Amino acid sequence: MDRRSFIRAGAIGTAATALAAPAIAQGNITWRMVTTWPKNFPGLGVGAQRLADRITAASGGRLTVQVFSAGELVPPLQSLDAVIDGTAEMSHGAAYYWQNKSTALSFFTGVPYGMTTAELGAWVRFMGGQEIWDEIYDQFGVQGFLSGNTGNQAGGWFREELTGLADVQGKRFRTPGLGGRVWEKMGATVTNMAGGEIFQALQSGTLDAAEFVGPYNDLALGFHQVAKHYYLSSFVEPGLATEIVVDKAKYQELPDDLQAIVRDVSQAEYDMVSADFVANDPRALQTLINDHGVQVHQFPDDIMEAGAKGAMELIEELRASEDPLVKKTTESYLEALKLVRSRTEQIDMPFQKARQTYLNL
Amino acid sequence: MDRRSFIRAGAIGTAATALAAPAIAQGNITWRMVTTWPKNFPGLGVGAQRLADRITAASGGRLTVQVFSAGELVPPLQSLDAVIDGTAEMSHGAAYYWQNKSTALSFFTGVPYGMTTAELGAWVRFMGGQEIWDEIYDQFGVQGFLSGNTGNQAGGWFREELTGLADVQGKRFRTPGLGGRVWEKMGATVTNMAGGEIFQALQSGTLDAAEFVGPYNDLALGFHQVAKHYYLSSFVEPGLATEIVVDKAKYQELPDDLQAIVRDVSQAEYDMVSADFVANDPRALQTLINDHGVQVHQFPDDIMEAGAKGAMELIEELRASEDPLVKKTTESYLEALKLVRSRTEQIDMPFQKARQTYLNL
Repeated sequence: MDRRSFIRAGAIGTAATALAAPAIAQGNITWRMVTTWPKNFPGLGVGAQRLADRITAASGGRLTVQVFSAGELVPPLQSLDAVIDGTAEMSHGAAYYWQNKSTALSFFTGVPYGMTTAELGAWVRFMGGQEIWDEIYDQFGVQGFLSGNTGNQAGGWFREELTGLADVQGKRFRTPGLGGRVWEKMGATVTNMAGGEIFQALQSGTLDAAEFVGPYNDLALGFHQVAKHYYLSSFVEPGLATEIVVDKAKYQELPDDLQAIVRDVSQAEYDMVSADFVANDPRALQTLINDHGVQVHQFPDDIMEAGAKGAMELIEELRASEDPLVKKTTESYLEALKLVRSRTEQIDMPFQKARQTYLNL
Repeated sequence: MDRRSFIRAGAIGTAATALAAPAIAQGNITWRMVTTWPKNFPGLGVGAQRLADRITAASGGRLTVQVFSAGELVPPLQSLDAVIDGTAEMSHGAAYYWQNKSTALSFFTGVPYGMTTAELGAWVRFMGGQEIWDEIYDQFGVQGFLSGNTGNQAGGWFREELTGLADVQGKRFRTPGLGGRVWEKMGATVTNMAGGEIFQALQSGTLDAAEFVGPYNDLALGFHQVAKHYYLSSFVEPGLATEIVVDKAKYQELPDDLQAIVRDVSQAEYDMVSADFVANDPRALQTLINDHGVQVHQFPDDIMEAGAKGAMELIEELRASEDPLVKKTTESYLEALKLVRSRTEQIDMPFQKARQTYLNL
């Protein structure tokens, strides 16, 4: 019996029975929430637990959410399936993990050269994003809500400094998902591996570079011990939104007030997780620079430019999809991005640039 | 009897009796929420009503929040006093309106050259901001929570184009609060007047310029009809956070689940109001440019630089305050700003600049 089957069987045979599914006692409901994050994973795992606790607290225990970290009930990448097949009522993860179900789901997490945290929130809440997302998840009998965002991620750890695009050719780079596809177009040799395997691969030289999240998470994994060049601003992950996914039928059976609490807490957590990264990334970055001698860089311009070209190719491929929902999602996202970036560029950025230039604290 | 006394008397003599204070029927509680915003004011007035409705919905009506727009129960700038004296249980406004109680309160709304929406959230939630805010409001028996943010505001409407700092000298400019004090240091003749009076003053030439919110609100007030030059990026209001203030004793008497709902919904609304502006400012801006021939600009560099100098002087004045809480708030804010701006500048901005340069949609 492999680990996955073992955990599954254990869950069904023991844990699930103990919990009842879903447990209803004196009108109270218990929901099992599986997550794709390790327990106490900075920002995201902590956020999943806090979200569960907040739903439990706001409902006075009428809806108690019990958290199962990655692997505790099902393997992390089985979280959505666990909700679909009824093993859990709820999952906390990222929509782009389910690209095998629909490539359109990437847009609800983040895409290369795409939306920031604030822009994505605007699209989902006020520009038609949620409605399209519902259409995609309706096919699977589930409902998604935004539940957090890492903000703009870091570009990655490199064993050697990059002087320009030529240095990217053949670099063995760990960077998953659509970001990996962009780096492939740019000439890198992209590999994927779990977070826990990166350190050793960088150390042994099996990898030349790796991208994970940002300073807050990266510091905990110790990459600075085996790669000294940290490229700060990622262009392939300008944000990574997390989601909760709920069993839609069970969600709709909840009384209206409990449905509202699930929605409200998820939205509060979109703000809370974002704030956690904004507060704690720079603290971690200071430690990396001051205590560990990490050299920080920005990617050279020709790499940024090639990244934009790759991202546009990728987005055009998605727009040309034969799946009407993928096409529709891409069109809606692009139309919204054109609008929201104009505000970012004309209102936010000039102030931030002036503050950077003129405000000496 | 002046308008304020009339409304007050009316509230105590009639409206308040009809509502009971707070009304408790079959265990249900009704809270009166006064606001500083006109009914249906884009983004903010709409947000106040939505916040009230969400608390009512999430509590299943156990805590029903009844909204009184600006002037309905008390004049807008009496909203905090209304909570302090028990006329209302809750208010929705902006902390910097209560600078007469403590100048430190400005920091919980936004200050010139200060924090963005995301940065302020990080300070309040993870870097000690809420704790200091509680200390300030404890003096008045109330409790504040963030409840929205306009995002970076627009710089303002000018009848004539600005070619540089010399043009600012003597300009009669409507810009309130700390922003006004910075423009005064820069040489402008700053006046304050209510939103509804700006249009006529600009039209008659009593004002040379006026700053209100941003495209979403400004379009509705029609300033483009009387001033064609719109300066997009404000350096004195890089964000304007709204708050709710609750009567602390009554809040603490609520059952734990209702307290949680008030907190959760307020935080959800911090995200929702922000998203509303991110989505709707650019739509309004397109209308202003395409349908009304508005000319958009950025402030010339020497104006931005003089603004930073003025803002630093102002912040130093606050830091030198004899009020220990003002001093403490300023120190905490500055320490947090140094950290969070480093993330904005090193991680967010390089991506956004590359996207502006290389992503042609």
